[in-house]
Amino acid sequence: MVFTDWPAPTSEHLSLAEPFPGDRPLRLSSGAPLAPVQVAYETFGRLNDTRDNAVFVCHALTGDSHPARHHADDAPGWWETMVGPGRPVDTRRYFVICANVVGGCAGTTGPWAPGPDGQPYAGAFPEITVADMVGVHRALLATLGIRRLRAVVGGSLGGMQALEWLLRHPRDADGFAIIAATARQSADNLAWNAVARYAIRSSAAAAAGPAREAGLREGLGTARMIAHLTYLSERSLHRKFGRAPRRTGTRTHPSSLVQGDFAVESYLEHQADKFLRRFDAQSYLQLLGAMDHFDAFAVPDRLHTLDVLPDVLLYSFTSDRLFGPEHSEGIRTELAARGLSARHERDVTSDVGHDAFLLEVPGFLAVADRFLRGVDLRSGTLRDGLVPS
Amino acid sequence: MVFTDWPAPTSEHLSLAEPFPGDRPLRLSSGAPLAPVQVAYETFGRLNDTRDNAVFVCHALTGDSHPARHHADDAPGWWETMVGPGRPVDTRRYFVICANVVGGCAGTTGPWAPGPDGQPYAGAFPEITVADMVGVHRALLATLGIRRLRAVVGGSLGGMQALEWLLRHPRDADGFAIIAATARQSADNLAWNAVARYAIRSSAAAAAGPAREAGLREGLGTARMIAHLTYLSERSLHRKFGRAPRRTGTRTHPSSLVQGDFAVESYLEHQADKFLRRFDAQSYLQLLGAMDHFDAFAVPDRLHTLDVLPDVLLYSFTSDRLFGPEHSEGIRTELAARGLSARHERDVTSDVGHDAFLLEVPGFLAVADRFLRGVDLRSGTLRDGLVPS
Repeated sequence: MVFTDWPAPTSEHLSLAEPFPGDRPLRLSSGAPLAPVQVAYETFGRLNDTRDNAVFVCHALTGDSHPARHHADDAPGWWETMVGPGRPVDTRRYFVICANVVGGCAGTTGPWAPGPDGQPYAGAFPEITVADMVGVHRALLATLGIRRLRAVVGGSLGGMQALEWLLRHPRDADGFAIIAATARQSADNLAWNAVARYAIRSSAAAAAGPAREAGLREGLGTARMIAHLTYLSERSLHRKFGRAPRRTGTRTHPSSLVQGDFAVESYLEHQADKFLRRFDAQSYLQLLGAMDHFDAFAVPDRLHTLDVLPDVLLYSFTSDRLFGPEHSEGIRTELAARGLSARHERDVTSDVGHDAFLLEVPGFLAVADRFLRGVDLRSGTLRDGLVPS
Repeated sequence: MVFTDWPAPTSEHLSLAEPFPGDRPLRLSSGAPLAPVQVAYETFGRLNDTRDNAVFVCHALTGDSHPARHHADDAPGWWETMVGPGRPVDTRRYFVICANVVGGCAGTTGPWAPGPDGQPYAGAFPEITVADMVGVHRALLATLGIRRLRAVVGGSLGGMQALEWLLRHPRDADGFAIIAATARQSADNLAWNAVARYAIRSSAAAAAGPAREAGLREGLGTARMIAHLTYLSERSLHRKFGRAPRRTGTRTHPSSLVQGDFAVESYLEHQADKFLRRFDAQSYLQLLGAMDHFDAFAVPDRLHTLDVLPDVLLYSFTSDRLFGPEHSEGIRTELAARGLSARHERDVTSDVGHDAFLLEVPGFLAVADRFLRGVDLRSGTLRDGLVPS
């Protein structure tokens, strides 16, 4: 595959750390070394004097280090409902950290970064895993002098990171909130990612020479549409679009056979266009691969090393056709088999699908808020009971 | 879009008719004339002396005129469970006719056919509708000297043809079996077709000059994968593949990021490959467009012109994520509002999704058998009560 250049985002609130400098490489799960590793992150709120009020927010497939606004004029974040003053991850109470994952394309080292020859890695970037993402997050925390978190919170791929973190490093946090996630992708999940890869691969293959980059990106548009549809529900699509016609001026091809007549089609085209302006095909392939190979309980966990187990919240949405309740229930069962009793709460009120975790769903946000307040209380009374990390 | 040549299928059992010769064009729903129109069809069983035992079988999106074997050594058909000796559409009892739809690529006039300039129509083929498909089927029947059918039977797009036929020409048959179909595509259905079109369009656009044809076809592979997944259920995918690894020898790209490691992915690639050998991208765009624009009850029906209404069976599968029970129930409700009381039966035993209508689902086949036997009985006793066509 060809190189796709990708500019690192710039923001007054974006910080860069280099937990793995050139002479101290990160050893990836695959065994491959990676250096240097730069991490793009943002923080919200203040770290308290006892340095024990930090919450790490893990982002989903196409997220970045910007979950929320830093001030009224700031660009909106991807999780404004969850993170902010008065929100469950309350930036008045917590020191909130969010970092772009390794392999991503929003500032943290990924396929866009220059490799050993000074040219971007592109397709030569080594395969990363969810464990690698968590490893880089932990290295960032060490850089920041944070030895323990109040909580790790994430949805979708972010929830998979939170689950990985819980199983492999359970002493790192008092609470783990794993939302609309899975312990391993189902055949159906794998299948949709397979189509996305095929679209990217075949579109790039169809184009020759310098056009290959364009091909790669055209395929990424298809991949985004597929993913976007798995994030929505039949009902939300019906409510938003029904069979409403495409608005005039949204047509780029003269034939309605080649570009259809309905509003839902121009909406998806718009989603693809927006995505192509902010995402890199090589990063997308990396993150799909990490999701596909994630199998949380396949390797030994360290839960048994703890006397007091952290609080765990599992949350799912009944209308989610990507990681519905059966996925969270699967995590609950497997955690229980390892002696960790977790709550699994299901939202039945929202019918908007997987994306519900990013939206204003009052019941969900109330549960997340209660969970974090419970973690706070328990952290205060039980901290001494926890094995120090 | 570019021309894709497509060979007409050859089979000793395939017949060709030309209901619309060059000097007597078909007037399409769009108003455009189309001539000549050739129809590829197959027949099974024998037309009785009273010429009233004919059953028309309508095929789905990518079907053809070959629903069943003609003899033991023949190639298997796409609906062997439904059509054949001792099957619900019993070829010992009925004279069965099945024809490739207009706009298709299996012998009936479509984008592959030569246009006025002697070159294939390709993207210049006029837009066809489900009503046009039914119109051409009816013209074929006239050519064959069949004035009335015992039944029209179809699933998916075939069921949409059966519904169209019922509403616009209810005197044509004593019974209509409309299986796993819809009166109009939902926003979700439209959305998946939109992604298919985007994949075909963008893949063709990525390729320049002579490579455009390849691009068109690469995109068609993606489109097929998407459609195929909507025909299956999460459960059937889990049962068939789970997270089993790809078998060795099925890899064509060295990187597992670009071509993943799981069996479900190589299965989908295989489906795409098979499809590309038998289907034409321009036909596919035509048929998607016809499905998207189909809105059965949007134009006046002729049900009110009958004294005695035909028997109608609506059948759906609960595991169908394309046209689930709510689609068939919608048809039932709208038919009831027009005074036609139809049975809507749901299969809850099969968990294999939309494709269940093509498979050995005993309950479903028993219902279809009972329905057709009921139509036979009623046809014998009530024929005189029906307004002659």
